[in-house]
Amino acid sequence: MNAQTPTVTVGELPASRKVHKPGQLHPDLRVPMREISVHPSAGEPPVTVYDSSGPYTDAAVKTRIERGLPRLRENWIKARGDVECYEGRTIRDEDNGFVSADRLTPEFPVPNRPLRAAGGRAVTQIAYARAGIITPEMEFVAIRENLGREQLRSRLQRDGESFGAAIPDFVTPEFVRDEVARGRAIIPSNINHPESEPMIIGRNFLVKINANIGNSAVTSSMAEEVEKMVWAIRWGADTVMDLSTGRNIHNIREWIVRNSPVPIGTVPLYQALEKVGGVAEDLTWEVYRDTLIEQAEQGVDYFTIHAGVRLPYIPLTVDRVTGIVSRGGSIMAKWCLHHHKESFLYEHFAEICDICRAYDVAFSLGDGLRPGSIADANDAAQFAELETLGELTKIALAKDCQVMIEGPGHVPMHKIKANMDKQLAVCGEAPFYTLGPLTTDIAPGYDHITSGIGAAMIGWFGTAMLCYVTPKEHLGLPDRDDVKTGVITYRIAAHAADLAKGHPAAKVRDDALSRARFEFRWEDQFNLSLDPETARAFHDETLPKEAHKVAHFCSMCGPKFCSMRISHDIRAEAQKEGLAAMAAKYRDGGDLYMPIDGTEASTNT
Amino acid sequence: MNAQTPTVTVGELPASRKVHKPGQLHPDLRVPMREISVHPSAGEPPVTVYDSSGPYTDAAVKTRIERGLPRLRENWIKARGDVECYEGRTIRDEDNGFVSADRLTPEFPVPNRPLRAAGGRAVTQIAYARAGIITPEMEFVAIRENLGREQLRSRLQRDGESFGAAIPDFVTPEFVRDEVARGRAIIPSNINHPESEPMIIGRNFLVKINANIGNSAVTSSMAEEVEKMVWAIRWGADTVMDLSTGRNIHNIREWIVRNSPVPIGTVPLYQALEKVGGVAEDLTWEVYRDTLIEQAEQGVDYFTIHAGVRLPYIPLTVDRVTGIVSRGGSIMAKWCLHHHKESFLYEHFAEICDICRAYDVAFSLGDGLRPGSIADANDAAQFAELETLGELTKIALAKDCQVMIEGPGHVPMHKIKANMDKQLAVCGEAPFYTLGPLTTDIAPGYDHITSGIGAAMIGWFGTAMLCYVTPKEHLGLPDRDDVKTGVITYRIAAHAADLAKGHPAAKVRDDALSRARFEFRWEDQFNLSLDPETARAFHDETLPKEAHKVAHFCSMCGPKFCSMRISHDIRAEAQKEGLAAMAAKYRDGGDLYMPIDGTEASTNT
Repeated sequence: MNAQTPTVTVGELPASRKVHKPGQLHPDLRVPMREISVHPSAGEPPVTVYDSSGPYTDAAVKTRIERGLPRLRENWIKARGDVECYEGRTIRDEDNGFVSADRLTPEFPVPNRPLRAAGGRAVTQIAYARAGIITPEMEFVAIRENLGREQLRSRLQRDGESFGAAIPDFVTPEFVRDEVARGRAIIPSNINHPESEPMIIGRNFLVKINANIGNSAVTSSMAEEVEKMVWAIRWGADTVMDLSTGRNIHNIREWIVRNSPVPIGTVPLYQALEKVGGVAEDLTWEVYRDTLIEQAEQGVDYFTIHAGVRLPYIPLTVDRVTGIVSRGGSIMAKWCLHHHKESFLYEHFAEICDICRAYDVAFSLGDGLRPGSIADANDAAQFAELETLGELTKIALAKDCQVMIEGPGHVPMHKIKANMDKQLAVCGEAPFYTLGPLTTDIAPGYDHITSGIGAAMIGWFGTAMLCYVTPKEHLGLPDRDDVKTGVITYRIAAHAADLAKGHPAAKVRDDALSRARFEFRWEDQFNLSLDPETARAFHDETLPKEAHKVAHFCSMCGPKFCSMRISHDIRAEAQKEGLAAMAAKYRDGGDLYMPIDGTEASTNT
Repeated sequence: MNAQTPTVTVGELPASRKVHKPGQLHPDLRVPMREISVHPSAGEPPVTVYDSSGPYTDAAVKTRIERGLPRLRENWIKARGDVECYEGRTIRDEDNGFVSADRLTPEFPVPNRPLRAAGGRAVTQIAYARAGIITPEMEFVAIRENLGREQLRSRLQRDGESFGAAIPDFVTPEFVRDEVARGRAIIPSNINHPESEPMIIGRNFLVKINANIGNSAVTSSMAEEVEKMVWAIRWGADTVMDLSTGRNIHNIREWIVRNSPVPIGTVPLYQALEKVGGVAEDLTWEVYRDTLIEQAEQGVDYFTIHAGVRLPYIPLTVDRVTGIVSRGGSIMAKWCLHHHKESFLYEHFAEICDICRAYDVAFSLGDGLRPGSIADANDAAQFAELETLGELTKIALAKDCQVMIEGPGHVPMHKIKANMDKQLAVCGEAPFYTLGPLTTDIAPGYDHITSGIGAAMIGWFGTAMLCYVTPKEHLGLPDRDDVKTGVITYRIAAHAADLAKGHPAAKVRDDALSRARFEFRWEDQFNLSLDPETARAFHDETLPKEAHKVAHFCSMCGPKFCSMRISHDIRAEAQKEGLAAMAAKYRDGGDLYMPIDGTEASTNT
């Protein structure tokens, strides 16, 4: 390939090793996890963590971007015997925004002949689930979700408040099947994206996060976007949305999908709009439908469809402080208003379902009327649309399509739970997928934080996937550092939610890191953290020497004031003096004063 | 002065002007606020925001660090006729950690003769409040808390969930007096810190934040610490704690107090430990008492006193994952254990109260047994100590001392509210002052975020002041950038809490910024944000030209996809077509389909 072939970040994270667990129903499964080893002095097994980073962090795999990732699901898909290979749509100039030849992103070198359902069948995970079939995808996610939990099974301590979720002690393939069949969870897995490592989005599973990438008319290139995808999953993005709006959309997307081990989501409306020269009024169902098929053939795993932005709701937004802030929502609103017609997405929703079920593209029903400011939170427009999304959810589920529902946006803390409760009520527990929400409007430049607060809370309340917000939100396009900051912030939010919900295995990593902290195993503390590079760099700013990595203090307090070090002295004294016995005595007797010479205590040793 | 005289950051924030509001009871009051002006096209008045930054951001004042700030409270204090000037304690070598002469931080150039209560009286704000006196300090904070709310009074919309707080529509001096008299709020205001601009900490007022500074044995100097204080209040710290533990503690603190317009808090135990060479067992009540007086004479406004770490509680910490993580707590635990004696802080608590009431040093009852990991949250040790803090609160209040209570620490989201509820129950609504809490342990390097989530939540639940956590927490000493990041993160948390509690004026700034956003007033958007510099810099990374500051789009979506721009088109069409009338019709009739030619709608214009 030429110089434009992207190079991406590869290599293991510190002290980490990719491991693969086999299936039982499907023994050929190789479910990836990351094992983080700790110092031998700890006397502890490695900590197994969820790993969304794909082969890029597998020392045993040499990835080649111009070849794409191994097609691990291809045989599973074909073995089901319900798909056909076909010629597919021809790529047209409009697909790449009529870009001139000299600026055209090169086509992905390996042509891909698409699959689709044969004979109008539903080739979706929900269709299989409802038919009682446990697919390899389902067993894969069951194993993946457990994080090696079988070793913990005997000593599990459940502790949390899940607000009515039904998180099992142990995730079985049958549990996954049942959750997918009920529509409570989705496994986005387009049959034309066989490179993907299956993952599940649902309230009774680990909270997931999405990172957005995408070029715009103003900036960025294919090489940057592919690297952004790889970079985002390296730090823990579970899915990636390609929100490109500029030229070369089709070709860039192909490079991304072929190299992505995580589900890829898009907003097909963006590309449809490019095809009609950016004039919302010129959009038609035919152009949109063509775009859905184009992207379904490429392997996009979920589509944001703003079919809930209905003509009668638009007037409800007129008195808002910030109007309509969803791009898709505003485009559809403009179309509806111009034509004085109901949305073609709403009207053709059943046909959209028919396309999605033929490829297993999941729905992400877009919240085109989400609030864009604290002032507009939970207003009539937002909730009217949510009720329509509930109605559409039923239609999609009846068509055997997988569905999740998008949520806000900007919401002050006291109004967050009402969003979750209403979504559960009107969408029948279909997974909720929210953007933050941002809990205040006054901190542009820090909206990963304003929204991380809301994201952690709504994740706790039951949201299944959190769409990240980067520090550049409202200000500009995120660069590589912003992507990382956004991903880490949202991993924090998701993990805080998992802990609070009482996910059985979530606390394992916290406890391992806290033990490392207490025992001054600095290297372990770095390695077990979400961002080992930053943790190490911050430590080394003040204490750079290698010797300090085993020091029993840090620069915050210095050696004399180290509470942890003093705690060790106390523990040592406790062992000497029999403090546990002392404690029992205190609790029983309640006499708070020890004899000054301590004889009573020492006889208990 | 010599080259060691610190230079600090001065100057107004963008588009901002310091204004001063007079009192009514005390007409000489000049209560500082910051007015942020907006572009004339907005047709809006300036936005008034709380301003903790002191004279450093006042263009009319030339500060000179070697002179200290104006002593604005001096006359108020003396006018009460209940204090006496006296010789004060002589500074000894031990006060500066026996530092060698060549490394001694120079003394502050202006000697300060201390005041203390005459005739054993209580010269505390709570004593005055209980006597029915509205001090200038009380009126000052009443005006300060309202944020110019009198202009809003007629159109106030209350919206929030305050969990039983009693936030008034309008803060009167009498309300402040009553809250202070009840012990529900404190105004930290040592009579020897007349430079301070009064502020209040209580559940029914704006949520406050504290920034920690301080040198350690390992790093940093006086010049850095003074600048860190000025820098922290520039970005919004309401109080600053000097947690120095190294040499030169006394002299550095003098420079800080004389130049601080915000209350200064300390942990006197740190200096006491330095005086006994860092050997916890060698601490005595006499050394500690001497340190309290030394610091009270300098003007420290609140003391963290770890008097709740009692001998019988220490065994409860032995099986913890992270033992005792409070420095003060671990020092006291070690002392208690070594001597097999009850804590001298607990035993001498009444005498400590007598010292504090003679200077009006407020208590910050330390949570020496706070959890240092998710695993240890809400455990027996933590809650046993909290009950003792409740007991001590009663003693302090009976002595007419002002009291707040420190709280954790590391707490998963589902266990946060129990902390607030228990604190309210056992401490009689004395203000709660928490460190975060951190909602997960797995993100060293990002603990401003892990803790910002918990801080926003506990602030909403009723915590009166949030102690910031910087990105360097657990790893190293914060530098200037870390201090700013910590402060901004905690301003976000505090503001999100104010919004959720339904503080009457909190939303004004959000709404003003959101309107600026919707109207593409980029400069206003930057200026109204918590950190105008960062917001502007992020915007300019992709669209640096001045022309883009008036552009009706940004680099995120480019012009074609700008939802806000489209919203304006929609609004324009609405005005043309009479959309409000359409909306009413839709709501009444429920017919969702408009006639295609739109005649019905247009006749309603």
